[in-house]
Amino acid sequence: MTCALFGSLGLAGLLAAPAPVPPARGPLEAWVAANQRAVVAELVDLIALPNTASDTENARANATALRARLAKRGLRAELLETDGNPLVYGERLVPGARRTLLFYSHYDGLPVETRAWKQPSPFKAVLRDARLEEGGRELPGFASRASFQPDWRLYGRSAADAKAPIVGLLAALDALEALGRTPTSNLRVILDGEEKSGSPSLVSAIARHRGKLAAEVMLILDGQAHPSGRPTLMFGARGYLLLDVTVYGPKVPLHSGHYGNWAPNPGLRLARLLASMKDAHGEVLVKGFYDGIGPLPPEEQAMLDAVPDDSERLMRMFGFAQPERPGLSLQRALQLPSLNVRGLSSAYAGGEARSIVPDRALASLDVRLVKETPAPAMAEKIRAHVRAQGFHVVESEPDDETRARHPAIAKLVMRGAAEAYRTSPLLPECQAVAQAVASQFGEPPVLLRTSGGTVPIAPLIDALGFPAIALPTVNFDNNQHAENENLRLGHLFTGIQTIASVLVMP
Amino acid sequence: MTCALFGSLGLAGLLAAPAPVPPARGPLEAWVAANQRAVVAELVDLIALPNTASDTENARANATALRARLAKRGLRAELLETDGNPLVYGERLVPGARRTLLFYSHYDGLPVETRAWKQPSPFKAVLRDARLEEGGRELPGFASRASFQPDWRLYGRSAADAKAPIVGLLAALDALEALGRTPTSNLRVILDGEEKSGSPSLVSAIARHRGKLAAEVMLILDGQAHPSGRPTLMFGARGYLLLDVTVYGPKVPLHSGHYGNWAPNPGLRLARLLASMKDAHGEVLVKGFYDGIGPLPPEEQAMLDAVPDDSERLMRMFGFAQPERPGLSLQRALQLPSLNVRGLSSAYAGGEARSIVPDRALASLDVRLVKETPAPAMAEKIRAHVRAQGFHVVESEPDDETRARHPAIAKLVMRGAAEAYRTSPLLPECQAVAQAVASQFGEPPVLLRTSGGTVPIAPLIDALGFPAIALPTVNFDNNQHAENENLRLGHLFTGIQTIASVLVMP
Repeated sequence: MTCALFGSLGLAGLLAAPAPVPPARGPLEAWVAANQRAVVAELVDLIALPNTASDTENARANATALRARLAKRGLRAELLETDGNPLVYGERLVPGARRTLLFYSHYDGLPVETRAWKQPSPFKAVLRDARLEEGGRELPGFASRASFQPDWRLYGRSAADAKAPIVGLLAALDALEALGRTPTSNLRVILDGEEKSGSPSLVSAIARHRGKLAAEVMLILDGQAHPSGRPTLMFGARGYLLLDVTVYGPKVPLHSGHYGNWAPNPGLRLARLLASMKDAHGEVLVKGFYDGIGPLPPEEQAMLDAVPDDSERLMRMFGFAQPERPGLSLQRALQLPSLNVRGLSSAYAGGEARSIVPDRALASLDVRLVKETPAPAMAEKIRAHVRAQGFHVVESEPDDETRARHPAIAKLVMRGAAEAYRTSPLLPECQAVAQAVASQFGEPPVLLRTSGGTVPIAPLIDALGFPAIALPTVNFDNNQHAENENLRLGHLFTGIQTIASVLVMP
Repeated sequence: MTCALFGSLGLAGLLAAPAPVPPARGPLEAWVAANQRAVVAELVDLIALPNTASDTENARANATALRARLAKRGLRAELLETDGNPLVYGERLVPGARRTLLFYSHYDGLPVETRAWKQPSPFKAVLRDARLEEGGRELPGFASRASFQPDWRLYGRSAADAKAPIVGLLAALDALEALGRTPTSNLRVILDGEEKSGSPSLVSAIARHRGKLAAEVMLILDGQAHPSGRPTLMFGARGYLLLDVTVYGPKVPLHSGHYGNWAPNPGLRLARLLASMKDAHGEVLVKGFYDGIGPLPPEEQAMLDAVPDDSERLMRMFGFAQPERPGLSLQRALQLPSLNVRGLSSAYAGGEARSIVPDRALASLDVRLVKETPAPAMAEKIRAHVRAQGFHVVESEPDDETRARHPAIAKLVMRGAAEAYRTSPLLPECQAVAQAVASQFGEPPVLLRTSGGTVPIAPLIDALGFPAIALPTVNFDNNQHAENENLRLGHLFTGIQTIASVLVMP
């Protein structure tokens, strides 16, 4: 395989090489510095549009606003209707284009539980002078500020995931326009409105709009930059498999005094089942869980080793003394499928607890998948594991006859899945993008073999058949899947330059 | 020990003897049949007074109403003020009394979650023609009915626990008055307003009101009659120890993709801890959990064997195929301390689940105690067990330094405790009560060595120093610790006769 960027040194060579001489980063950086107010204002305006995917009216308002904002940048923009929320599509053809780039991002965000946020509304952005957890204080009247410190944070739903990257793309186009530079590639943009529910409409849109999705390289504007703060490229993403396991006790909650130690306790049964799935050192015990995952090629091993993770700092920040699998580095852990208990529920716990034997206990699991472990096979392995623990496995509520026949019953419900994808980082397209970013910043970007998190567009990537590279631009500590989601503004400002550099790459 | 009732046959003899000839049950039974409307109306009126203990204003309204209703039956009644809700006290001295009986019950009920109830308000009683779970339909306009089928059910908070027994006592006094019969014992009545929170005010009232609590026998009007439907006496109750165990993950919820399999998962850790506490056959593995529990004396063993439990029917009704400890009968199980997971919570589960590594997982446990396993020692054994599983045990939220030092941290919080009590069923007082009930119904009552559930007045019983016998009168399937609490009316009607028979025992 030709290796345009890394030459005979290969990927490992680039990683080990001294940083290139600081480049002509100047004009782009200067434009961003001079236009912070407009950039931040555009993001605040977009956050103000509530974007839970199930809130279809507001979702459409997001789509309409984004279509207009793309059109303002000279793209021919339209809404592509689907069975769900519309896709926003934009296109800009460039005379003499070297290639066509397809940018993907999404405008929907996770549902919010407003009470859990430390601000009146997740859709009314709040600026703080630092992270909340580090004592960040609100900075009032920020709409009138001309400049913003890079460490300041903008709090709001989708501030990071993924309205900031969309604003990054819009601002990059503004910057090039202002600097009199023309993109070297044709641009296509597709903005998904259902990423948080697995992008169901996107997949069905492939057949209808294949022409609009034709390109040589797909660039995914989603995900979080490496914690080192350096620009980051990512060549894959783990998939996921979501499943709920319900274990049963008596049909109705029973008094724990009158029946405790006689009626089966579903919480303890669930605990035994979950405990059977992972050993004390964090290794998953489900049979075949790691099947097909062999040793990495040396180039990819070198790529993992070159990632400047600072595990000690992360652990201090996150407040734990030891990773789940003590011997495994973060990058190594992300190359493997994971098994995570994302939620537990049985009757009431804490101050609300009642003295009952609950009727059921529920664990919501997510398994992160890698390319070698597709979702259907993984689901079957987990089902087999639950059966091997002595449970009769059902898919709906057990009836009286089932209850009378089976001492232990578990209901398994699959709640969704998305496959992993991985693009080889050794492809010339990947190296061209890496070179462009390296040139802008004067140092090689962090190259991640895979994101731990999911971009649920693996079917799209598979169907389109050209390389997909993610440009994750937002801060890693953004709380994007919880309350108090936030964006570090410095990441937005850098992200604009990252995207712009790719738009004008040779 | 003299055994007035059972003579040379002893307790086992009574249990094995043929049922006595049907007695003069007639007049009491007839009075109840003729006065159902007034009895049910009194219960409905009492249910209408919301009685969550923390709702002190309404609790006092309950107390005031009960004082008036006792006074109406010729008791000198008053409220005894405490640091919490008042105790209702009533006294009626009888010339030539054979003894003094102290009746105990409680007017408070567990908190309600109204949405979970199948009626508009748990405090507006609803009459149904059967159990909800068996398709019971609402019977409208029941206030105007003159008679009620015994299988009909009255739904409402405290319908069973414990407003029905209180109404049973009031009606028993009415019945005796109407039949021209005078109680053979002095009566003292004490109604607790904080039973559901462990009766804290009751204990402190002992010293101040010892004279008012003086008696020869204490009769506890609480708990549920045996499922066979036969009148029931109970000579003890298990205690409880409530504790919450919190196990920690990262300080804030983390994205399960970016950190899953690297950040420790608190749900899995909690599962491992809980699984370590009980084996697959339901035997608790906490060291010393069963210490001090030896084989039973033959009389008490015979008592257990004579209890007409119909385990098969119960299991069918409750919808499980096998008890938690397959070899252990229900009565045997209740003689042992139990370990029950009454609630689990970690982040969100089910439809609300998010793809995060949660920051914590919480299990609320209740341990049912027996006389041999006092609460403080049991708490220490559980603490030692958690430590032995590798957890650093704390009692409040761990700070950063604690988190940095200990890979596994568990917070243990004790939420309350009540000791078990047990009165020897071989005492003459116990046998007099059993004889009175046997005479009324023409068959021996079910004699229970201990209730599985708790009456949190062991300290009162210990301090008073005279025998305590429970007369549990309500149906066992009353949902008293959950939503849709209900009373089978036949149990109320029988309970009136049970209490009346004791009021006039020789």
